[in-house]
Amino acid sequence: MTFDAPIPLSSLDMIAFDADDTLWINEPFYRDAETQVREILQRHVSGTDIQEKLYETEIKNLEIFGYGAKGFTISMIETAIELTGAAIPAADIQQIIDIGKGLLQNPIELLPNVQHTVQTLAEKATLMVLTKGDLLDQQAKLQRSGLGRYFDVIEVVSEKDTITYQRILQKHNIQPERFLMIGNSMRSDILPVLELGGHALYIPFHTTWIHEAVSDIPENIWKLDSVSEILTIITD
Amino acid sequence: MTFDAPIPLSSLDMIAFDADDTLWINEPFYRDAETQVREILQRHVSGTDIQEKLYETEIKNLEIFGYGAKGFTISMIETAIELTGAAIPAADIQQIIDIGKGLLQNPIELLPNVQHTVQTLAEKATLMVLTKGDLLDQQAKLQRSGLGRYFDVIEVVSEKDTITYQRILQKHNIQPERFLMIGNSMRSDILPVLELGGHALYIPFHTTWIHEAVSDIPENIWKLDSVSEILTIITD
Repeated sequence: MTFDAPIPLSSLDMIAFDADDTLWINEPFYRDAETQVREILQRHVSGTDIQEKLYETEIKNLEIFGYGAKGFTISMIETAIELTGAAIPAADIQQIIDIGKGLLQNPIELLPNVQHTVQTLAEKATLMVLTKGDLLDQQAKLQRSGLGRYFDVIEVVSEKDTITYQRILQKHNIQPERFLMIGNSMRSDILPVLELGGHALYIPFHTTWIHEAVSDIPENIWKLDSVSEILTIITD
Repeated sequence: MTFDAPIPLSSLDMIAFDADDTLWINEPFYRDAETQVREILQRHVSGTDIQEKLYETEIKNLEIFGYGAKGFTISMIETAIELTGAAIPAADIQQIIDIGKGLLQNPIELLPNVQHTVQTLAEKATLMVLTKGDLLDQQAKLQRSGLGRYFDVIEVVSEKDTITYQRILQKHNIQPERFLMIGNSMRSDILPVLELGGHALYIPFHTTWIHEAVSDIPENIWKLDSVSEILTIITD
């Protein structure tokens, strides 16, 4: 909580939350999936560091697959085929598919204080979930989370850049200065919203996908240790 | 054009189009992908009819994957592994992945009269695209189609049932009786909209995914041979 201008509730029309690693744990499941795939690959090749190769494949595929577990699964398979020189048996590829399916069926583990914070905010503000990823997967996760009833709007988008935020704000008829975004990704949740003149609260998560990392973190932004601090920043 | 009550334009607030096989060709690309996979499998097993097995796998996976090319690709791989008793080499699985990627990059071939019809309607009505599938894929196809500028709203949803239509209508503040849906799927485009009291125009396409087929087609519905007939049904 390094920034010091509280935001009056009456100055906001919409408070939007990122979902993965803001409301619930996500990225560690992906790292865990990579570890499991590495163990499979080590049966066939030695000294395999799949993380770098997998990231390269994911970025190469991002334009056609977009974000989410299904594209991640296909990228894991492609990486496994490439790293083993196509020597990986089909049974092992089925195991990778099952790991990918697991990502789509993980139990939802809410981050600390999320339940109370979201419930409290929902009583006095209009809340949105604004997330990237697979449409059905994100809808299903919100449902499994038990938080669905607190959110008035759910938007699953294919990218979170200034153009997307502009489109979402126009669609819901919200002025940027009356919009607050809360999330763990400087690149997707904070910078584009600030650029448009909106408000943003940055809540870093211990594990961040390298694609979401940025080197230049602006000064004078709200950086929170816990989602519960939102309740002290937004004043009645 | 068997039904005979024209719909005055002034009685509608929104005209929504399904996308795949209503605006542009889609299902034949999927059938073609299946044929290509069958050719790959025939190197390893004889007399393979993958279509039934693939459909079984797709339906089994539908709940966690949803609709769209990425889930279809993973289902094709699983089917190939199962039908070959896991004997399929990884290089062939890479070929299947490439076939799946092709589905996400196909050129858009508009159906006859779509360009003119949509352009004409856009001058006097508010148009929506309402489609299932992968979010990014559908957005990209609309962009590649050149039709994007004619549509005021794009909604990619994970299912097209009455609950979804209710949610979409509420979101855009539209009364069902002032909503018209146009599409090639009796199950997803026509029946749920009629059930809600909306209007629907059914334009069958020669190839329909078996999952979208229904046995009972109601009487007294508009059934069109071409999208251009919309312009005579909707009267100024």
